[in-house]
Amino acid sequence: MSGSDEEIYAVADFCLIPMGTGEPSVGPYIAECHRVLEKSGLTFKVRGYGTNLEGPWDAVCAAIGDCHLAVHKQGAPRIATDIRIGTRTDKVLAPGTGNESKLRRVQEILAADKKE
Amino acid sequence: MSGSDEEIYAVADFCLIPMGTGEPSVGPYIAECHRVLEKSGLTFKVRGYGTNLEGPWDAVCAAIGDCHLAVHKQGAPRIATDIRIGTRTDKVLAPGTGNESKLRRVQEILAADKKE
Amino acid sequence: MSGSDEEIYAVADFCLIPMGTGEPSVGPYIAECHRVLEKSGLTFKVRGYGTNLEGPWDAVCAAIGDCHLAVHKQGAPRIATDIRIGTRTDKVLAPGTGNESKLRRVQEILAADKKE
Amino acid sequence: MSGSDEEIYAVADFCLIPMGTGEPSVGPYIAECHRVLEKSGLTFKVRGYGTNLEGPWDAVCAAIGDCHLAVHKQGAPRIATDIRIGTRTDKVLAPGTGNESKLRRVQEILAADKKE
Repeated sequence: MSGSDEEIYAVADFCLIPMGTGEPSVGPYIAECHRVLEKSGLTFKVRGYGTNLEGPWDAVCAAIGDCHLAVHKQGAPRIATDIRIGTRTDKVLAPGTGNESKLRRVQEILAADKKE
Repeated sequence: MSGSDEEIYAVADFCLIPMGTGEPSVGPYIAECHRVLEKSGLTFKVRGYGTNLEGPWDAVCAAIGDCHLAVHKQGAPRIATDIRIGTRTDKVLAPGTGNESKLRRVQEILAADKKE
Repeated sequence: MSGSDEEIYAVADFCLIPMGTGEPSVGPYIAECHRVLEKSGLTFKVRGYGTNLEGPWDAVCAAIGDCHLAVHKQGAPRIATDIRIGTRTDKVLAPGTGNESKLRRVQEILAADKKE
Repeated sequence: MSGSDEEIYAVADFCLIPMGTGEPSVGPYIAECHRVLEKSGLTFKVRGYGTNLEGPWDAVCAAIGDCHLAVHKQGAPRIATDIRIGTRTDKVLAPGTGNESKLRRVQEILAADKKE
């Protein structure tokens, strides 16, 4: 972030949409994003409608920007991305566990339903 | 939809945020949404940062609205939800396969990388 | 909503992205959405990166669905929309004032900054 | 962006949601974001359901991250933000005109409707 020594851990999920490509399929572009994210070293997971990604705020944003550059190079003249990004100061997340731990908490609550 | 006989199949992913709850945890609210969605009969999957949901447009929107009603009943005075929702006319999706098939296509492309 | 007599007022903002259109411009599609929303009778406002829309939950969702149908008819084979939608039980909004009142509140706080 | 000399111009709109604050109002937090964005030097506009923001990719992301830091300092233990962010290579935008020019294009098309 600008002019700050503080760094904050971000848990994100983004959905990148190539525009003006002449065909409705996005698989090849999302696959290219997968390759870019592998190089980033961040924890990520491609899903059905978006990609989970987490790490330091600046690194997460830079990785998504690198996906834009790569998808433009593949020929998409325009890209619209939706990013959900969260931060918290009430607990420290072990790096790479943010998205998983949110899901696990919900599963624990639902498992308790069945025991009752 | 209003004044229309047309029905369109929607593949969605939504992230519901309870506000003004006095505590940062959302697990119990998301678990409640899970219970609501089970009753809807729609195909859905709770994930780390959002819930996949698909079905006829009106049914998908109604199910998310029912989640809002349920979470208000749990005590959240305000809710903000982000919904990604997609439709297509270029191919017919077998009901319940939209999110899975998008993911499978990306995995196939990446698997081909490794064979080369 | 399904199986419920309750109706809830929703304040929303949506951004519709036509895909596979062969050209990066979206102006004609967004203009078509404007025509659809005018027929809906709901309060709305097209902005730079999204359209404000508010009204009963079902009517808001139906209007956005009608935009999808209209944009498919214009030739877009696939559409991805991002919807932000909020509801609250802590206060009653005069119909059509939700987005405006949120903005006014922020402006009042900032105006007080200048008086200090 | 990481390991790249390329810089890309981004047109964005973000909606920041403070969580666990004990009250449903967000006005004071959004006003604080306004103060942060003024310091950023970027072109921005607070609206009803989100804030338009544009500039170089890294600067846009850094400014939103600075909003998170400031809102955490105000006492919000958790924040969830939805960011819509777009880039294009088919035309060069004069800095600060991206969101406005998208809106103007739609207005021109609609104005032509009335002339017919």
